[in-house]
Amino acid sequence: MRSAAVTITGVRDAVVSVGSPMRNAYVSFSTMTCSVIAVEARRGDRQFFGFGYTSNGRYAQSGLLRDRFIPRLLAADPAALADEAGDNLDPRAMRRIVMADEKPGGHGERSVAVGGLEMAIWDLAAKVAGEPGHVFIARRYGEPAPVDAVNVYAAGGYYQPDAASDQLRHELRRYLDLGYAVVKMKIGGATLAVDLKRIDAAVGEAATTGGSVAVDANGAFDLGTALAYGRALSERPVRWFEEPVDPLDYHGLAEVAAAVTVPLATGENLFSLPDVRNLLRFGGMDPRTAILQMDAVLGYGLAEYRDMIDAGKAFGWSRSQFVPHGGNHLNLAATAAFGLGACEVYPTKFQPFGVVDARTRVDDGRLRLPDIPGLGLERRADLMAAMRGVLD
Amino acid sequence: MRSAAVTITGVRDAVVSVGSPMRNAYVSFSTMTCSVIAVEARRGDRQFFGFGYTSNGRYAQSGLLRDRFIPRLLAADPAALADEAGDNLDPRAMRRIVMADEKPGGHGERSVAVGGLEMAIWDLAAKVAGEPGHVFIARRYGEPAPVDAVNVYAAGGYYQPDAASDQLRHELRRYLDLGYAVVKMKIGGATLAVDLKRIDAAVGEAATTGGSVAVDANGAFDLGTALAYGRALSERPVRWFEEPVDPLDYHGLAEVAAAVTVPLATGENLFSLPDVRNLLRFGGMDPRTAILQMDAVLGYGLAEYRDMIDAGKAFGWSRSQFVPHGGNHLNLAATAAFGLGACEVYPTKFQPFGVVDARTRVDDGRLRLPDIPGLGLERRADLMAAMRGVLD
Repeated sequence: MRSAAVTITGVRDAVVSVGSPMRNAYVSFSTMTCSVIAVEARRGDRQFFGFGYTSNGRYAQSGLLRDRFIPRLLAADPAALADEAGDNLDPRAMRRIVMADEKPGGHGERSVAVGGLEMAIWDLAAKVAGEPGHVFIARRYGEPAPVDAVNVYAAGGYYQPDAASDQLRHELRRYLDLGYAVVKMKIGGATLAVDLKRIDAAVGEAATTGGSVAVDANGAFDLGTALAYGRALSERPVRWFEEPVDPLDYHGLAEVAAAVTVPLATGENLFSLPDVRNLLRFGGMDPRTAILQMDAVLGYGLAEYRDMIDAGKAFGWSRSQFVPHGGNHLNLAATAAFGLGACEVYPTKFQPFGVVDARTRVDDGRLRLPDIPGLGLERRADLMAAMRGVLD
Repeated sequence: MRSAAVTITGVRDAVVSVGSPMRNAYVSFSTMTCSVIAVEARRGDRQFFGFGYTSNGRYAQSGLLRDRFIPRLLAADPAALADEAGDNLDPRAMRRIVMADEKPGGHGERSVAVGGLEMAIWDLAAKVAGEPGHVFIARRYGEPAPVDAVNVYAAGGYYQPDAASDQLRHELRRYLDLGYAVVKMKIGGATLAVDLKRIDAAVGEAATTGGSVAVDANGAFDLGTALAYGRALSERPVRWFEEPVDPLDYHGLAEVAAAVTVPLATGENLFSLPDVRNLLRFGGMDPRTAILQMDAVLGYGLAEYRDMIDAGKAFGWSRSQFVPHGGNHLNLAATAAFGLGACEVYPTKFQPFGVVDARTRVDDGRLRLPDIPGLGLERRADLMAAMRGVLD
């Protein structure tokens, strides 16, 4: 007997504070929020819940979700979101449905709302299939069965008010002791001289375990400053130099790329395929060494992200150079499903939304994927508690 | 005696439907909304109100306004928004205040919220100064005293369901009879052959008054289609070919620019200075003939728009090539204050938000600016009635 179709019966969202007193070179995170989203569905007499949350840094999107994207999803013909067999949802179809009557260009905010919503649909559909999210995603895209552990790196090293001078070393040490091979710190919130001392201390700490340090300027530098940092970083064993200039300044990025030897990284603030195509075409980065950090949840979801991977291939970029911006279960699953280079996680920041927490051990830099149906958010009781606004 | 400072005492917003059954090549406008915004302020015992509304096409932004931008404005130190003399607001200062703790990149949606809010501050500050908006803006930017009438063009020619075959000619005839010298119609919602018949009919109609026709594809074409249309349009006396490709496809735009002779136009879906710099650098358009259509209200406000004009100058573009996307009183005022080429208006669409209405006569293509303090919204009783949600 043919299984029944899956019908979405409700979508709820809530706003959660992920604020903390830390800063990067560009913004304070004291008032940061994210959206948490629950999609409820039925197949026959069985009820399913899918959960999503938006990645950190771009605020909650309750208004856009409620005004435009949730109503369009609920109004859609269920057949438009069904897979070929008709007994599950095909999350890849969601983007077209909810983006009806949206003009081209202007890819911000709405891309976060749509990405968070699609994440919940992936979680739901994987649960309907009874598969871990990364296994379901790989099958949905016709990829080989995925590995069950992926490279991750620990992001932290923010500027903290009144921190002791050795606070950064202590923080990075903690990540190295948990098994991370790459740790990342913020730069650009101090002078070059002060930052170089911070970087040298961090590099020295990482060297004790054979690990390496990446540095992140968060797009705050003008071209001259980016070049000065880039030249100094090229003399050091730094894993990568992230967002040396404004994320949309492809010309400036190409100038930096031509002048430095430290590997460059960017992309977490590009939220659409057209923006990424421009980066690949005009940004001047070396596909053999540079890192692409687009985030599926900030950028319309996995369907758009997969298009970015395909665009990368056309421009000579292998999947190993894709390292999604992080702290999100969908990006972790995508890293496994598509065989990407690594995924960013936050062992101590944006909790409980960092994927891992400060007790999660990784094995030589590799994190084991959750092995329960769906994206695995239920493995974190504190995360589910933070999402109670959409569960009650 | 020194005048008292101006203090903002409240900000309200409401959502207004501007939906209609018409389509362009990309979207339906059946569920389109805009935000209306009122800023209330006091100077001594006098109360002032400033009004803004977001330009059509990108929906209302109530969530972002209430979650982030209005709270930041209300929390700001009044001195941060004061002008040098201390007895009025300097609207140019608002962008920095409300964009605190916003990451770079991702310029959509929030750019509309910020632009609408800044519009209300301009209206308010001009009223405090007792000057028409365009006069106040020009003075604020150290520009010469502005002209009191500017070139406008009439935008319309949408695809209408069940329209009679001569509906387009009738509509454009109406605009020509009101005194418009340039009228604009939509293309790309039909085959090239059908569209060419529509265009030829429109061009013939305009020729009877010495007027001309611009055509707008709304970014819906792939490169091959854009080239086919561009070549056909180059054989006709078409005023410009608007958004031949996706607004972010600078490479495709440059290919079109190299292959056609019809003047190109784009920019209404670029909402930030970095995006516009990329267009100017990579888009391949001819600064002598091409038209730049950025919209201050969709793109963070007049402060950002002025930066776009200055960027244009650095790339060899004169102000005559700036023709803002339209139907907005702030863009009309900017056209006069900065001496731009023209401004778009909607005599029959998006009413009552089209700046003009179907009875407004223009003199040889030129529209007289409102001559009351502020941006002149009060000259339209129907517009003020539509904004009653923020007035009650």
